[in-house]
Amino acid sequence: MSKDLGVTAEKQDAFSEWYTQTIVKAELIEYTDVSGCIVYRPASFAMWEAVQAFLDAEFKKLGVQNAYFPSLITESLLNKEASHIEGFAPEVAWVTHGGKSELSERLAIRPTSETVMYAAFSKWIRSHRDLPLLLNQWTNVVRWEFKHPTPFLRGREFLWQEGHTAHANKEDAEKEAQIILDIYKRCYEELLAVPVLSGRKSEKEKFAGADYSLSLEALFPNGKAIQACTSHHLGQNFSRAFDISFQDVSGKKEFAWQNSWGFTTRSLGVMIGVHGDDKGLVLPPRIAPIKVVVVPITFSKKPEVSAEVVSLAKKLCDENGWHLDDRDHHSPGYRFAEWELKGVPVRLEIGPRDLEKKVVVVSRRDQDGKEEIAVDNISSHVETLLEEIQSGLFLRAKQKLDSSVVDVSSLDQLKEVVFSGKLARAPWCGSEESEEEIKKVTGAKSLNMQGPTSDKCFVTGQKAQGVFVFGRSY
Amino acid sequence: MSKDLGVTAEKQDAFSEWYTQTIVKAELIEYTDVSGCIVYRPASFAMWEAVQAFLDAEFKKLGVQNAYFPSLITESLLNKEASHIEGFAPEVAWVTHGGKSELSERLAIRPTSETVMYAAFSKWIRSHRDLPLLLNQWTNVVRWEFKHPTPFLRGREFLWQEGHTAHANKEDAEKEAQIILDIYKRCYEELLAVPVLSGRKSEKEKFAGADYSLSLEALFPNGKAIQACTSHHLGQNFSRAFDISFQDVSGKKEFAWQNSWGFTTRSLGVMIGVHGDDKGLVLPPRIAPIKVVVVPITFSKKPEVSAEVVSLAKKLCDENGWHLDDRDHHSPGYRFAEWELKGVPVRLEIGPRDLEKKVVVVSRRDQDGKEEIAVDNISSHVETLLEEIQSGLFLRAKQKLDSSVVDVSSLDQLKEVVFSGKLARAPWCGSEESEEEIKKVTGAKSLNMQGPTSDKCFVTGQKAQGVFVFGRSY
Repeated sequence: MSKDLGVTAEKQDAFSEWYTQTIVKAELIEYTDVSGCIVYRPASFAMWEAVQAFLDAEFKKLGVQNAYFPSLITESLLNKEASHIEGFAPEVAWVTHGGKSELSERLAIRPTSETVMYAAFSKWIRSHRDLPLLLNQWTNVVRWEFKHPTPFLRGREFLWQEGHTAHANKEDAEKEAQIILDIYKRCYEELLAVPVLSGRKSEKEKFAGADYSLSLEALFPNGKAIQACTSHHLGQNFSRAFDISFQDVSGKKEFAWQNSWGFTTRSLGVMIGVHGDDKGLVLPPRIAPIKVVVVPITFSKKPEVSAEVVSLAKKLCDENGWHLDDRDHHSPGYRFAEWELKGVPVRLEIGPRDLEKKVVVVSRRDQDGKEEIAVDNISSHVETLLEEIQSGLFLRAKQKLDSSVVDVSSLDQLKEVVFSGKLARAPWCGSEESEEEIKKVTGAKSLNMQGPTSDKCFVTGQKAQGVFVFGRSY
Repeated sequence: MSKDLGVTAEKQDAFSEWYTQTIVKAELIEYTDVSGCIVYRPASFAMWEAVQAFLDAEFKKLGVQNAYFPSLITESLLNKEASHIEGFAPEVAWVTHGGKSELSERLAIRPTSETVMYAAFSKWIRSHRDLPLLLNQWTNVVRWEFKHPTPFLRGREFLWQEGHTAHANKEDAEKEAQIILDIYKRCYEELLAVPVLSGRKSEKEKFAGADYSLSLEALFPNGKAIQACTSHHLGQNFSRAFDISFQDVSGKKEFAWQNSWGFTTRSLGVMIGVHGDDKGLVLPPRIAPIKVVVVPITFSKKPEVSAEVVSLAKKLCDENGWHLDDRDHHSPGYRFAEWELKGVPVRLEIGPRDLEKKVVVVSRRDQDGKEEIAVDNISSHVETLLEEIQSGLFLRAKQKLDSSVVDVSSLDQLKEVVFSGKLARAPWCGSEESEEEIKKVTGAKSLNMQGPTSDKCFVTGQKAQGVFVFGRSY
């Protein structure tokens, strides 16, 4: 394989360079002349479609309905909830002109859709009978960040779903926020084979306008943590600002209790970073658009046998997700390397000698080595293999994550742990002052709260809110 | 039913008012504080999802892959193809600021994505082996028009798919442009039950940057025509501007031949306008999110019988697309009217007396009258009924369209025909001068070309390009 085709950076030593080379060379993305705005090429968009299919089915089971709200939001509407606009104002992309005319009020491209959706919720909700209102949309959003963009992980435009719900009471809303987080966790673990830490964000790290935020956090091989997705309980903050009120059963006026929750294309970047190796992508079978590639090995000197080989290869590719690579202008070696780069879970080779022996040579992307399998058994063998690869990738990553969480009891220890590429765990008070001190002294941020504790805060010695994990983070 | 719930305008006499009342009262849309930007509520978005499912499956059969390109396009990139920017410049929404910073170059929100996609095509296409390249994306687009907006039919933001393809030769490209138009036609006719006129647009009405455009055209009951969707053959106009070139089999450099094609949420507005009646929406079953509504009629004086009625109604609603309406705080009459307004194809009522007789009372939305059907046969009866309604709605609209096309041989006749709410058909030269004259004298536009002719142009007396249809149009 030419250097140009393959990834030249080593994942362990140069993660960022490895990541960037991999996603470009595996044809997942293309850069454009707008920084932070990328093309999702078919290979990555098909993975996003698999995420959509998984989540959308789960949402619909809960009675969530899809809708579409405008991408353009008036400045006055965006300003309606104070802490929300404070959080988003620095990164809003503003439309000021339509054709040659200056607009009378500038318009934000949605950075998120609470404001435009809740203005409508306010019109629709009158009675307790209108609740719960459970809506979701699959859209693009624009956040004009000035931090260095990284495809999938941080960009100025990304794709996501945003769910927005209104409930008659706090209890129902809080229950739903957790149910959604659990669905997200299943998507990460069952589809993307990525283990995550599930819990509540700190006060400082919560969503602008939320009572509190729940999150999933993942760990990259370079020791950096990354927020995988969030589910926010908004309390009555927006319902009071937007007058989303209803008559309860007794006829009394109440404000609705709300949640919002989102899952983005960042999830693909997390999956790529967790599983890839020095040869490129390693895709869990359930997310892989091509699960099996079949490469017939032909020889121009034996045209008849070659035709038979190709014919058998073609026949195998009747199965969904099996791809035939009969490009005979590339050598088998070149083709093998390309499919390794692209992370296809299983490769089958068939040559004239295999044809004679009625076998197929099977290689799996996540392990070295090849084995010969009888043609007659190939379909069920590969099916089992795909399941093995899926669960194997998850288990390997899970062991890595579990062994990376280290209990600490001082800021010095925390610093040492996060600089060794691990995550620190400690009972913590969760205060904003304390979070700023941790950041200043160690460079780490709180990720989320893993559970309750009766211990005292490891920084202030005061009552702990719970046990938190900390890490250097994206 | 209260006046507030029902549609008060008559479709025949006040089409615009009827249309607007219907889509709002049937809860298909909500207005926002940005003119021309609407909310697609779950009832209409579910129909869009049905359109997406239909078209996406057809595209994938052709080998078209989905992708996603950024929504923001630099001004310099947008300017690259001269006639394209000339056509779109007046209606571009411009982003000038990110947060508090002014951008160094302003960015267009995509009005369509030729430019951003073809900049990437130019990087990806090197050899004839890279062709055909067949990509599609499902997105929002923004066109800042100053004409009066009408939900679905004309708005500043709408949803669509845009397919963009590159081929090794003109013949392949032209063939594909027609295949796509035929898929669009099937979507209109088989899914939306809307008959259309299929053909080539005139020079003046073609897409900005195309060699020629193909279109489907539909007819509203008010006698106005509406362009239903388009498929453009771009020739080499963009491939030359963006240097999308390849080495052909003999090693010679060639520019690619291209198409672009789009299908928008306008299709829902066309379907609504064609089928609705004075009670509101009339939905063809295949596009209806709720195909059958089951209304149990209960009496508080007979709680045990009522429970049995509701239990039977619930059992029926196990089927996909069957909806139970057991809201006993609304009278049966109110509920019937609401589902009529919302266009649900079939309504079933079950009361205590029906329970005794083991029958269900069946009403179809497209016709008056009720009939009693044995409970045991209800499922297969309704299935047949839904098919009858689907084909019946199409046939009724097809007869209306067919009888509305009138051959003319002078501008006076054309004017008379279009003002009587019909479409005029005539052999025509297709020139821009002649089109302007027709517009000036009659108020009508050319819709598309139905076929060849050996007759002379009805305006100029010169050689006709073909037989065209003309109409007053949206």
